[in-house]
Amino acid sequence: MRAVVWHGPDQVRVDERPEPTLEQPDDAILRVTTSAICGSDLHLVRGRLPRVRPGTVIGHEFCGEVVAVGEGVRRHRPGDRAVAAMHTACGRCPSCLAGQHARCPDYAMFGCGELFGDLDGGQAELVRVPLADMTLAPIPSGLDDADALFVGDILATAYTACVDAGIAPGETAAVVGCGPVGQLLVECLQLFAPAAVFAIDPVAERLAQAAGRGAVPLPAGDDPRAALRALNRGRRADCVLEAVGSAGGLETAWRLVETGGRVVLVGLLVDEPFPESAGQTWLRALTVRPVLGRPYAHRDTLLRLIQQGRLHPAGVVSETVPLADAPDAYRRLQARLTTKVLLRP
Amino acid sequence: MRAVVWHGPDQVRVDERPEPTLEQPDDAILRVTTSAICGSDLHLVRGRLPRVRPGTVIGHEFCGEVVAVGEGVRRHRPGDRAVAAMHTACGRCPSCLAGQHARCPDYAMFGCGELFGDLDGGQAELVRVPLADMTLAPIPSGLDDADALFVGDILATAYTACVDAGIAPGETAAVVGCGPVGQLLVECLQLFAPAAVFAIDPVAERLAQAAGRGAVPLPAGDDPRAALRALNRGRRADCVLEAVGSAGGLETAWRLVETGGRVVLVGLLVDEPFPESAGQTWLRALTVRPVLGRPYAHRDTLLRLIQQGRLHPAGVVSETVPLADAPDAYRRLQARLTTKVLLRP
Amino acid sequence: MRAVVWHGPDQVRVDERPEPTLEQPDDAILRVTTSAICGSDLHLVRGRLPRVRPGTVIGHEFCGEVVAVGEGVRRHRPGDRAVAAMHTACGRCPSCLAGQHARCPDYAMFGCGELFGDLDGGQAELVRVPLADMTLAPIPSGLDDADALFVGDILATAYTACVDAGIAPGETAAVVGCGPVGQLLVECLQLFAPAAVFAIDPVAERLAQAAGRGAVPLPAGDDPRAALRALNRGRRADCVLEAVGSAGGLETAWRLVETGGRVVLVGLLVDEPFPESAGQTWLRALTVRPVLGRPYAHRDTLLRLIQQGRLHPAGVVSETVPLADAPDAYRRLQARLTTKVLLRP
Amino acid sequence: MRAVVWHGPDQVRVDERPEPTLEQPDDAILRVTTSAICGSDLHLVRGRLPRVRPGTVIGHEFCGEVVAVGEGVRRHRPGDRAVAAMHTACGRCPSCLAGQHARCPDYAMFGCGELFGDLDGGQAELVRVPLADMTLAPIPSGLDDADALFVGDILATAYTACVDAGIAPGETAAVVGCGPVGQLLVECLQLFAPAAVFAIDPVAERLAQAAGRGAVPLPAGDDPRAALRALNRGRRADCVLEAVGSAGGLETAWRLVETGGRVVLVGLLVDEPFPESAGQTWLRALTVRPVLGRPYAHRDTLLRLIQQGRLHPAGVVSETVPLADAPDAYRRLQARLTTKVLLRP
Repeated sequence: MRAVVWHGPDQVRVDERPEPTLEQPDDAILRVTTSAICGSDLHLVRGRLPRVRPGTVIGHEFCGEVVAVGEGVRRHRPGDRAVAAMHTACGRCPSCLAGQHARCPDYAMFGCGELFGDLDGGQAELVRVPLADMTLAPIPSGLDDADALFVGDILATAYTACVDAGIAPGETAAVVGCGPVGQLLVECLQLFAPAAVFAIDPVAERLAQAAGRGAVPLPAGDDPRAALRALNRGRRADCVLEAVGSAGGLETAWRLVETGGRVVLVGLLVDEPFPESAGQTWLRALTVRPVLGRPYAHRDTLLRLIQQGRLHPAGVVSETVPLADAPDAYRRLQARLTTKVLLRP
Repeated sequence: MRAVVWHGPDQVRVDERPEPTLEQPDDAILRVTTSAICGSDLHLVRGRLPRVRPGTVIGHEFCGEVVAVGEGVRRHRPGDRAVAAMHTACGRCPSCLAGQHARCPDYAMFGCGELFGDLDGGQAELVRVPLADMTLAPIPSGLDDADALFVGDILATAYTACVDAGIAPGETAAVVGCGPVGQLLVECLQLFAPAAVFAIDPVAERLAQAAGRGAVPLPAGDDPRAALRALNRGRRADCVLEAVGSAGGLETAWRLVETGGRVVLVGLLVDEPFPESAGQTWLRALTVRPVLGRPYAHRDTLLRLIQQGRLHPAGVVSETVPLADAPDAYRRLQARLTTKVLLRP
Repeated sequence: MRAVVWHGPDQVRVDERPEPTLEQPDDAILRVTTSAICGSDLHLVRGRLPRVRPGTVIGHEFCGEVVAVGEGVRRHRPGDRAVAAMHTACGRCPSCLAGQHARCPDYAMFGCGELFGDLDGGQAELVRVPLADMTLAPIPSGLDDADALFVGDILATAYTACVDAGIAPGETAAVVGCGPVGQLLVECLQLFAPAAVFAIDPVAERLAQAAGRGAVPLPAGDDPRAALRALNRGRRADCVLEAVGSAGGLETAWRLVETGGRVVLVGLLVDEPFPESAGQTWLRALTVRPVLGRPYAHRDTLLRLIQQGRLHPAGVVSETVPLADAPDAYRRLQARLTTKVLLRP
Repeated sequence: MRAVVWHGPDQVRVDERPEPTLEQPDDAILRVTTSAICGSDLHLVRGRLPRVRPGTVIGHEFCGEVVAVGEGVRRHRPGDRAVAAMHTACGRCPSCLAGQHARCPDYAMFGCGELFGDLDGGQAELVRVPLADMTLAPIPSGLDDADALFVGDILATAYTACVDAGIAPGETAAVVGCGPVGQLLVECLQLFAPAAVFAIDPVAERLAQAAGRGAVPLPAGDDPRAALRALNRGRRADCVLEAVGSAGGLETAWRLVETGGRVVLVGLLVDEPFPESAGQTWLRALTVRPVLGRPYAHRDTLLRLIQQGRLHPAGVVSETVPLADAPDAYRRLQARLTTKVLLRP
């Protein structure tokens, strides 16, 4: 089968690989019909993730058709369509029962190297899915791949951020960065009846898309804080969600948040500094809350809301290309010529 | 001044009355620009409320313009527009600080007789408003009386019901009874991202109005439970909100709710029986939750959501008539020829 | 092996039965070291549960030592000590992921007959445990069987009741019925910092035991409501937990609860009537909440609290007898000569 | 009357001052029977608070007897004993109704200078208390001044911290700094049924006091993180509460908190740096939460819990001295020779 394989920093190729087989009674084999390139895949491709073995198949957003199941699999049968969570978990250990699936001893992230469980990913024609009853959710009839795909990762992340932010009806929120995750944040925030969602991004087109999802665009220009206040009765936002993952994004977030408010950190960070001292953050009474998406907690709700037309995640797809074109898609993503690419084997 | 006065069962007249005056330093006098007839006023008019003195001025939904304030009033000045809460509360006792304003020692319901504090109501040209800083909320500029009016009672009740029901995104809700409160329940429920809101009412027009607010109408006919299941993947509703206040409404509510679900009692009840035994309710694991509207907790949020266009309470008004026509309006309400009447002095 | 077998109404015998074997890859075989007789077992024995096949092995509270595991079992090894949940669940379906394990398609209650999944129980020398990674929790070293046993059923039920009751610090609670579940309710309530826990029971000794756990005993006599008010600043209890499961218990609960309070239904009910009308319950603004224990949600927390000495569930054991004496123990339980019996094979 | 007056950095004197009088209808005059010196008073005395006018009477923790009330005061009568909240609030504006009393337009902190409302404090024989119905809470009979005093400030702060930290039963917490607030944190944490509370402080005696309140002392020595892990099954604390207010305290807090945990900032901070980058805090998924005490939300609950013997705040008092000795008490506090001093006029 063909698969998107990492061979070293900025070396991505589509290789021929042996077909995966069932290894455990809980395994399933999925024939991938659609996978997506996630922003975090770009970090991997550039070589910024530690302990990734050359030869790793990339990809942790994917869905497809079940083609084989181990004898321990109860919920899926060959022929079923299903979408995978970005990582595995057992569902039965104390961490899983406490809703902290990312702390499960059976945690493994698809396509992210040894540090994350050394599990081949889904940018491929076939993929082995451990703990299939848990990892895979059936795709409700009537949903396209592009509708369902993101409940395993970025849509779950956006929704988790809103839940963890505790957005109450009538509050105001601001989203910093309007890439795919930022767009989904704007969509998910609307589920929680805010008085207004503001959005900020240097790219006018992204801002226009956020506005199309109901956000009030903030010009990225000279003084977004003043612009926000002018639009929000003199106040800053009750909650700011940072979806860039950069020092500049953090600075903007801290500037846009009202005294007593919350800064929710959604974008991937590594070693960016805090934009102000702990003392200043204390005096402003700001709560700082990092977010890790919880697909297992929320995917069933999300699929239901997509079915009902309350969420339209497929709208963030910028293009769909054949699997063979994955290397080119990575290049164009790095060059910011595209935003969210689907791969079709 | 003129006022709508109760003289005994089914005897409502518009009388000339002395103008109210400031009695306490916390009082304000409001010139009423709009008041509404509430469903519970019909109970009073029929003589079903105990200890109502003939001569009582009716009315607990009203707004207007402040014309005089006591020396202890800090937040309102003559000329300000304001909407009243349906009852008074001090804001400072342990009950108020615990959010239970209806248990305040200074609780008095406007226009409901001795049992509720013996306070004249707002279906009048002028009304004395005790504890004005608490009782009155400023009407934001840009809002009409009909937009703002209901935050003091029925809109607050509908919203409180949704909050207390704990509607989570992706759940299904059903509203039994599509009068004014039922319509507002449908609107408020939409704020909490349900997968679907079902509505049931014997009157086709009310059902059509609920559908216009996003509800899925259930034919009231033979078997609403079967109809609901057919529309809801074989399941009943996670949460049913009873907004009729009748034995029949309770029966329907209990039939429409899923095992493990919640029945929220919004409609005024007196001595209607439970539709099944405690044992059966236990076996079905149904939570039963009565609702008392909390205008003080929610009116600020509601005014914000109305301003933002997320709620349109004025849409439930069926007609607006001069204060002088109040007796006729009461007759037509009793005869179910109209649903929500505004009075303009 | 020997097992406690139901042969028809009030016919319980200890029989020789074939040893259970592994049937599914997820199964384990547990050598039971201690099992308990639960109040609901008495219902079964009397023949009040529908569709129980004569020949059923009784018992859903048990712990022991793992003696064999299927190839799909990851968390347990032969020789490990473990306590079972009262029912099975997969941990991976939408119901389980939503925390509603009792709605799992793989739900089966141990030893309760066909209606509940037709699974032999744990009052035996050996028991087959399906979905062992989920059903069994390891017993922390240092805990005796009697400490750990109840996290699978009655302690989880008592704790779930407190969580669902939403006891806030400084509130008052009352427990109606001081059998084993009532005693554990008193213990668990103390975890939530109530101002006071009141207890009521006609048996003086049980009341004394509740007092030993920190409850304030209410004389069951003429007028418990007046007694409660005298001890509680003139108020009734914010929350009443009914742990008898009888019409009389319900009456007492409704009498002891303060306006605006909560009645939590813990005791097993079948067809007992509500003690007042829906209208009266609405006027008093009482929330009614049935409880179903959630061992999967809480057992890890409970084991931790037992280890730390914050809970002492073993204290409710009234006697420990050999498995062979089970029939006699059932007779004495029916005659109310004992309260909580452990069986040792 | 005599009062403790600030005359400039490190210049505190007991002066003769004119007796305060009723200025507003909502005012009361309180004859102070006990006041306390709060840690934040030391900041003021040193001259670290901006815009404090020389001549300001210090003190925001005090209780006493009402001697006069304005005509608008409904809840207090001369002769009543009452304890003050540290700051005033109206109870009626949108901020107060949303529970954010510190954002009330009528906010004024006692004895903290112009920036905080320019209101004379309670380290005096008499004090004017604005908005007396709100600011003052009656002291339940049976409670000494030292029992009740702290519900207006440091006990409310400690309790608010625990509530905001969301301590769930079975979790582990660590308190950094065992001064008076740290001691009360240890006491309040016990209300939430943690598996364990760890405490750290360089002073052995403070650590012993924390142990006396149920904490597990951590030697402050070489490696508190290793010590904590050794006592906590290899894990760090789920929640760490910083009660020092120093860069060193922040470092310790960040070292003691488990991945995915919470750091709660209780101690007063000014410009201390974060001990690690935002990126590292994100990777560790740490939530950072500053705390502002909410006496209005919690004082009624706290008084109830003190009455019931669940809290013993008087235990943190290190000495009680006459008002005249206040200057000396400030010196000894600065020199760390005492910890919590009560003043008796």
